Amino acid sequence: MIEDFLKAALALSQKEDHYRDLTRKKYEKLLNRMRSNLAKTQFRLQESSRPVILVITGMDGAGKGEIITLINEWLDPRLLDTHSFWRLSEEADQRPRYWRYWRALPTRGHISIWFGGWYEPLLMEGISAARSRSGLDDEMEHIRHQERMLCEDGALILKFWFHLSKTEQRQRLEHLHRKDKPNWRAMEDDWSRHRIYPLMSEVTGHILERTSSPPTPWYAIPSADRLQRNLMLADILDRSLEEVVREKNGKRIPASKSDYQPSGRNILDKVDLTRALSQDEYRSLLIEEQSRLHKLFWEACRREISTILVFEGWDASGKGGAIRRVTAAIDPRLYRIVQTGPPTTEEHGYHYLWRFWRDLPRDGRITIFDRSWYGRVLVERVEGFATTGEWQRAYSEINRFEREIRRHGTVLLKFWLHISQDKQMQRFRSRQQTPHKQHKITEEDWRNRERWKDYEAAVNDMIALTGTPGAPWTLIAGNNKRYARIQTIRTICRALETALGSDQGRSVGD
Amino acid sequence: MIEDFLKAALALSQKEDHYRDLTRKKYEKLLNRMRSNLAKTQFRLQESSRPVILVITGMDGAGKGEIITLINEWLDPRLLDTHSFWRLSEEADQRPRYWRYWRALPTRGHISIWFGGWYEPLLMEGISAARSRSGLDDEMEHIRHQERMLCEDGALILKFWFHLSKTEQRQRLEHLHRKDKPNWRAMEDDWSRHRIYPLMSEVTGHILERTSSPPTPWYAIPSADRLQRNLMLADILDRSLEEVVREKNGKRIPASKSDYQPSGRNILDKVDLTRALSQDEYRSLLIEEQSRLHKLFWEACRREISTILVFEGWDASGKGGAIRRVTAAIDPRLYRIVQTGPPTTEEHGYHYLWRFWRDLPRDGRITIFDRSWYGRVLVERVEGFATTGEWQRAYSEINRFEREIRRHGTVLLKFWLHISQDKQMQRFRSRQQTPHKQHKITEEDWRNRERWKDYEAAVNDMIALTGTPGAPWTLIAGNNKRYARIQTIRTICRALETALGSDQGRSVGD
Repeated sequence: MIEDFLKAALALSQKEDHYRDLTRKKYEKLLNRMRSNLAKTQFRLQESSRPVILVITGMDGAGKGEIITLINEWLDPRLLDTHSFWRLSEEADQRPRYWRYWRALPTRGHISIWFGGWYEPLLMEGISAARSRSGLDDEMEHIRHQERMLCEDGALILKFWFHLSKTEQRQRLEHLHRKDKPNWRAMEDDWSRHRIYPLMSEVTGHILERTSSPPTPWYAIPSADRLQRNLMLADILDRSLEEVVREKNGKRIPASKSDYQPSGRNILDKVDLTRALSQDEYRSLLIEEQSRLHKLFWEACRREISTILVFEGWDASGKGGAIRRVTAAIDPRLYRIVQTGPPTTEEHGYHYLWRFWRDLPRDGRITIFDRSWYGRVLVERVEGFATTGEWQRAYSEINRFEREIRRHGTVLLKFWLHISQDKQMQRFRSRQQTPHKQHKITEEDWRNRERWKDYEAAVNDMIALTGTPGAPWTLIAGNNKRYARIQTIRTICRALETALGSDQGRSVGD
Repeated sequence: MIEDFLKAALALSQKEDHYRDLTRKKYEKLLNRMRSNLAKTQFRLQESSRPVILVITGMDGAGKGEIITLINEWLDPRLLDTHSFWRLSEEADQRPRYWRYWRALPTRGHISIWFGGWYEPLLMEGISAARSRSGLDDEMEHIRHQERMLCEDGALILKFWFHLSKTEQRQRLEHLHRKDKPNWRAMEDDWSRHRIYPLMSEVTGHILERTSSPPTPWYAIPSADRLQRNLMLADILDRSLEEVVREKNGKRIPASKSDYQPSGRNILDKVDLTRALSQDEYRSLLIEEQSRLHKLFWEACRREISTILVFEGWDASGKGGAIRRVTAAIDPRLYRIVQTGPPTTEEHGYHYLWRFWRDLPRDGRITIFDRSWYGRVLVERVEGFATTGEWQRAYSEINRFEREIRRHGTVLLKFWLHISQDKQMQRFRSRQQTPHKQHKITEEDWRNRERWKDYEAAVNDMIALTGTPGAPWTLIAGNNKRYARIQTIRTICRALETALGSDQGRSVGD
C-alpha cells in the first residue's frame, strides 16, 4: 500500500511538521524568502550545464494544476517549459514510446515541468490492468535506467507525488462540488475515481516504491493543507537547485560501473575483401534488386512498419555511393537521410542520444543514418571526445536505445563498410585527382588514417558488443564497390521480407 | 496553355540548344565541371547568410524523384534537407495552411529541397476544382508575397518545372510500362493522369504564369532528354548559387516599398487610467470570470478552435500577473506560454516570423505570447535592431501573418497593458524593495523608461496599423491591477463566446 511507502518518502521531504498549521502571514513570509532565493538560484542555473526535470504527479484533487501555475509564477518562465503529454499526437503515436519524452527534455540550464511524465501511462496501465504486473516492472526498469543515464549526463530529476488520503480526498471533493457554490475546478469524473481509491493507492505505491532510488527518489508531499503543500514544494525546489548550482559542473552522481569488456576478437579480419562483381553482373543485379527493394518499401509503408538503416565505415569505404543506390529505389517521400556530423550548439545542450531520438522515422517511413550514435564508441572514443567512462557505458546505453526502437516494430539494420588500408589509400589519391571530389578529402581523413589500429579495435568492440539478433551488424566487403552495393541492397531486402512475412506487425522479432 | 508560358520560361533557362543531343562522354565532361564548381560554391554558401529553397515540380514521368536523388549526389547532404509534404500529418493539419512550409525553411547557409512545395496543393485543388479560380488566385497572391518577404530577408528561391509534352509523356510512360521489361518506376495511376494532360497543362500554365515574377521566376526545363535535363538543372543551380555566394550579404533584392504612414494619432492618451476595482469586487468577480473562462476554453477544445493571446505592454504594466490570472483558469494541458526574448542563435538563422509560426497552437489549444512578433515594430524599431525598411514593412507582413492565423479559424486577441509613467516609477521602486522581485528590474528597464516618448509613438502606430476586425487590439487600463486582470479575462470570454456562438467553425470571423 502507498501509506507504507509514503512514510519513507515523507522522511525525505523532511519539514512536514515545520510547515503545519501556519498562519497566512507566516506563510507569506516563509514563501517570499524561498521565492527570492529561487529567483537568484535559477538565474545561476543558466550558467551551469545542468538540465532540470520536475515530474508532477499525485492524487486527484491534490491541486496539480494549481501547483504548475505556482511554479510558473515562482520561476522565470523564460527558462521553463511545461509539458503535459496529453492526447498523444499522431506524431508521437507513430514512434517508440519514449520519443515524446525525449522531445520534451530541457536543454542545459533550463527546467522542464512534466505533468505526469512517463509515470502517467504506467499508472493508467496499472489501474486498467492493460499491462501485466511483470510488464509494468519491465517498463519501470527501463525508466530507472533512463533516469540514471540522464543524471549521469548532468540532469537533475525531481519527482513529486502530491498525496491525499482517502478521507482528505473525499473532503476536498465535497468542497469542490458543494451545491451552494460549486467550484469550476470540480470535474465530472472526480467521484468515480475516488471510488477506486484503494486500487489507485495500491498501484501507485508499487510504482513509487519501484522507481524511488538514488539518484531519483520520489518526494511525497501531503497536500490536504495547501499552504503546507506549497512550502514543502518550494523548500525542496529551493534546496535542490541551490545544491546543483553550488556544484556547477562538478558534482554529478557517481557514474554507474560499466560492464565493458574489450571483445578481444578481430571480427574485421574475417571479411573476405576479394569478393567482386563485374560491370555486367552488377548492372543486371542492380535493376533487379532495386526493383525488389522498391516494392518492399511500399509494402512496409502500407503496413506502417518503419525502417532505420545505419551506415558506418572507413573513410572512402563507399557509404555515400551505397546509400544513393538504396535511395534511388525508394520514393523520395518515404525516406530521409540524416548526416551525422559533430553536434551543433543546440545538440550539445542535450544527452548525446537526443538528436537521434529526434530523427526516428514515423511508422511506414525510413530514416537512413549516414554515421550515427555509434560515433560515441568510434570517433569520440578514439579521439578522446568522450571520457573512458562515457564510451564504456555507451554500449549498454545503445543496446537499450535500440531495444526500444525494435520494441516499436521498427526494422533496424546496421552496416559496416569495410575496406583494406591499401584500398583506402588508392581511393584517397583518386579523390584528390577528381575535381568534384577534392572537397571530400580533408586533413582529418589523413589523420584518421594514421589511427587505423585504434579505430580497428573500436570497430571490433562495437560489432561484438552491440550486435544483437534484433539489431544485427552486417559487415560489407567494400573493396569492390559494385559488390558492396548489391550486398547492401540484398541485406535490406531480406530483412524487410522477414519483417513483412512474419505478419506479426509491431512485435516483429522482439 | 502551358506552352505559351513555357516559351518565356525557357528563355530564362537559356542553354537548351547548347545541351541538346549530347554524347554520353561530352555529358560527363560538362557535368563533372559543373559538379566541381557546385561543390566549391556550396561550401562558400555556408559562410554567407543566405538560405536557399529549391522547389521541384513537373509533369508525371519527368523524373522528379530521380532529380532529387541527383541533387543529393551533387551537393553536400550535410547542408541539404529534402521535404516532401506528403500525407499531411495531424500536427500540420491542425494548424494554418503554411505552417508546414515554415517548419521546412532552411537556416541561413543551408539548402532545402521542396518536393512540390506550396504549389502541389494548388495544382491538386486546381485540377479537382476543389478551389475556385478566384480562390486559387488569392492563394497565389499570398504565395507571391510570402516568397518576396523571404527573399527580402536574404533567401534564394529557385523554382523548377520539369516539363514533358503530351507526346513525350506518352512515350515515357510506354517505356516505363513496356510488357517485356516493366520498370519499377512505373506507377499504376500514371495513365489515368496522362489522360487529363490538357487539364493539367491548363491549370499548371495558369499557376506558373501567375507566380513567375522577380525575384522568384519559374525555370522550365524540358525533360524528355534526361542528359539535357540534368545539365540544364546543374547549370542553373551552379550559376544561381555562384551569384549568391559572390555577393555574400551584399546584393539582395531591392526591398519593396512599404506603405507605412505614421498614424499621427495618440490612441494611448484616450485610455482612462483612473478605472479601478476594490479588493472585494475583485475577489468575487475573479472567481466568476475565471469560472466562465474555464468552461469556454473546454468548449473551444471540444470544438477544436484554437486561441492565441498576445500580451504586450510597458515594463511593470502587470503582464505576468494578468497572464497568471488567465492561466489559473485553464487546464494546464490546454495552454502554453511562450516568453519572447531576444532571438537565440538558432532563431537568428531564420526570418523573424519563423519562431512564431513554430509556436502556433494546434486546434483546440491555446498559446499565450508574453511579448511577440510585435517586437519588430516596438523594441527593434526603437532600438534600431531593425532597419527603417524592415520595421516599416513589418506592419503589412504582420497583418498577412495574422490573416493566415484567422483564416484557419483561430481566435486571436492582442492586449496592450497601459500604465502611466508615474505608476511605472512607483512599481519599479517597489520591485527594488521586494527581495523575490528584485531580479525583475534591470538596467534595461531604466533605459527603456528614458525612451518612453519613442515607444509611445511606436505603440500608437502599432495599434493603428495592425488592429483589424479579426485581430483587434484591446487597450487595458493597467494602473489598477485588479481592474486590468478582470478586463483581460472578460475580453477573452467575450471573444470566445462570439466564436463559439457563431457556429461557423473554421470560417469564424474571416
